Amino acid sequence: MRFAKGHGTENDFVILLDPDGVGGLTAGFASRLCDRRAGIGADGVLRAVRAAAYGAAGPGDESSGRGSGANGAAGPGGGAGEAEWFMDYRNADGSLAEMCGNGIRVFARYLAQLGLVAGQEFTVATRSGPRRVRLGTGGDVTADMGGVAVLGPGSAVVAGQAYQGLRISVGNPHLACLVEVPLATIDLSRPPGLDPGQFPEGGNVELVQVTGDRSVAMRVHERGSGETRSCGTGAVAAAAAAANGPAANGHGGNTWQVTVPGGRLAVTLEGGGAWLTGPAVIVAEGELDPAWLAIAANGSVPL
Amino acid sequence: MRFAKGHGTENDFVILLDPDGVGGLTAGFASRLCDRRAGIGADGVLRAVRAAAYGAAGPGDESSGRGSGANGAAGPGGGAGEAEWFMDYRNADGSLAEMCGNGIRVFARYLAQLGLVAGQEFTVATRSGPRRVRLGTGGDVTADMGGVAVLGPGSAVVAGQAYQGLRISVGNPHLACLVEVPLATIDLSRPPGLDPGQFPEGGNVELVQVTGDRSVAMRVHERGSGETRSCGTGAVAAAAAAANGPAANGHGGNTWQVTVPGGRLAVTLEGGGAWLTGPAVIVAEGELDPAWLAIAANGSVPL
Repeated sequence: MRFAKGHGTENDFVILLDPDGVGGLTAGFASRLCDRRAGIGADGVLRAVRAAAYGAAGPGDESSGRGSGANGAAGPGGGAGEAEWFMDYRNADGSLAEMCGNGIRVFARYLAQLGLVAGQEFTVATRSGPRRVRLGTGGDVTADMGGVAVLGPGSAVVAGQAYQGLRISVGNPHLACLVEVPLATIDLSRPPGLDPGQFPEGGNVELVQVTGDRSVAMRVHERGSGETRSCGTGAVAAAAAAANGPAANGHGGNTWQVTVPGGRLAVTLEGGGAWLTGPAVIVAEGELDPAWLAIAANGSVPL
Repeated sequence: MRFAKGHGTENDFVILLDPDGVGGLTAGFASRLCDRRAGIGADGVLRAVRAAAYGAAGPGDESSGRGSGANGAAGPGGGAGEAEWFMDYRNADGSLAEMCGNGIRVFARYLAQLGLVAGQEFTVATRSGPRRVRLGTGGDVTADMGGVAVLGPGSAVVAGQAYQGLRISVGNPHLACLVEVPLATIDLSRPPGLDPGQFPEGGNVELVQVTGDRSVAMRVHERGSGETRSCGTGAVAAAAAAANGPAANGHGGNTWQVTVPGGRLAVTLEGGGAWLTGPAVIVAEGELDPAWLAIAANGSVPL
């Protein structure tokens, strides 16, 4: 089984190449791949399956239902062409995820590097529907992040301190708070307290500092993961919060530079949606060891 | 650059194949390889260099001095034959290490799997001198751990509680404490307090519970790393402490089963030294991406 490891602003992924969709990516196999000591180690797994083959994985792959929710639209500026590849994504704990902003950028870089796609712009099928991606120069990749909705004010308690912010949906729920204190002084080691009335399913919390014209820095606590080095939808929420705050006054342009602990991203807000641009790095490529695979894939369909 | 990832009881390693010793393994390159998000991720790097080629790496490899300390002896039961391969080892922080009990077992498994060694028993050159290794059935590998010296009583403070134990040298300094309380109840999140008079260079602390005849469980706090899933020299120290404690009375045999958080090891105490046996797993094999390598190896000699 061919694999690669890559990352986007230190949000890292194991990529599996399964063009014919013969391998099931079960929750158990994904979590074993992502085990940072007994496996390869990553924040999630991206399985590359030809869109035409997806759905033919057969029993054992409980991820066969391809969703098409509110984010299924083509997104801002991008007419969704025919997707040749489907991105089957699971988090490190094995749970399914509809989309991943850093993940789809690494996925696109991987397909291009292996010559599996033609051109600098193409469509990837995801559980949130088709998403346009564009390969930039110098390793950057831009991805359509779908619709962004500012839902209203909200608040969170972080290390005993209350922060006011905006509730923002980027497919998943965020609270993005513009803060004045230096980000490094904030203790994000424990989950922020959120109002269950505002966040019935929990949410991601971004602490955002305006650092210049159309430029912010942020730290993020991801629901279920803790503080992370980067979060694509979180960067979009941070830019949307800044664009709705005093920093947006008197300035032009709709592209925001967002510095995260793992690097730098750019977010373009456009027509009710967003594009995410940033580095996408392939670290290594190879084959999973057959003996390891036989044990790790136990319970999955044969790979 | 060819690489593999493997682990022994969840002590994990990146292995680099550099038979001709043309690549330098600098501290910076090792730490970038071990970065769990921007690199491959591991506890350390094992570079496989033909012993005849080692030392010809040239400038840029500050690890060229091959040590031969007190542990340079062949060890118990094993006449050190001619070593064909040298194990150049660095920790995840880039620091040099003389030997690594789990590392050398994974290293031996890798060499055997690639057909780079002949036979089930061979010698590996390390900075602690030549070490015998034996391939067992079912993926187990046994390694000569060199001399074990019980130096006398000592104590540590763990989470406000004082523990009495034995100071034991397995090349590196340990305090192994037999405890009565369940291991899971102990908070090892912070470094244990050690007496600088007893441990002038710090030390590893093992909390050891006797679980049966010649059978112990342990948790370990490694100097500079925190609590880890496994520690080869720590397992040896745990067995030596148990063999010197009341649990050894009235029982026969010199092989101890040592359960660590990452799996099970066996330690055979013999003639003032020890052998360590346990699983050695290769997870994957492949090539580092040339573009990633060009950046990561910056400052190293070309690879």
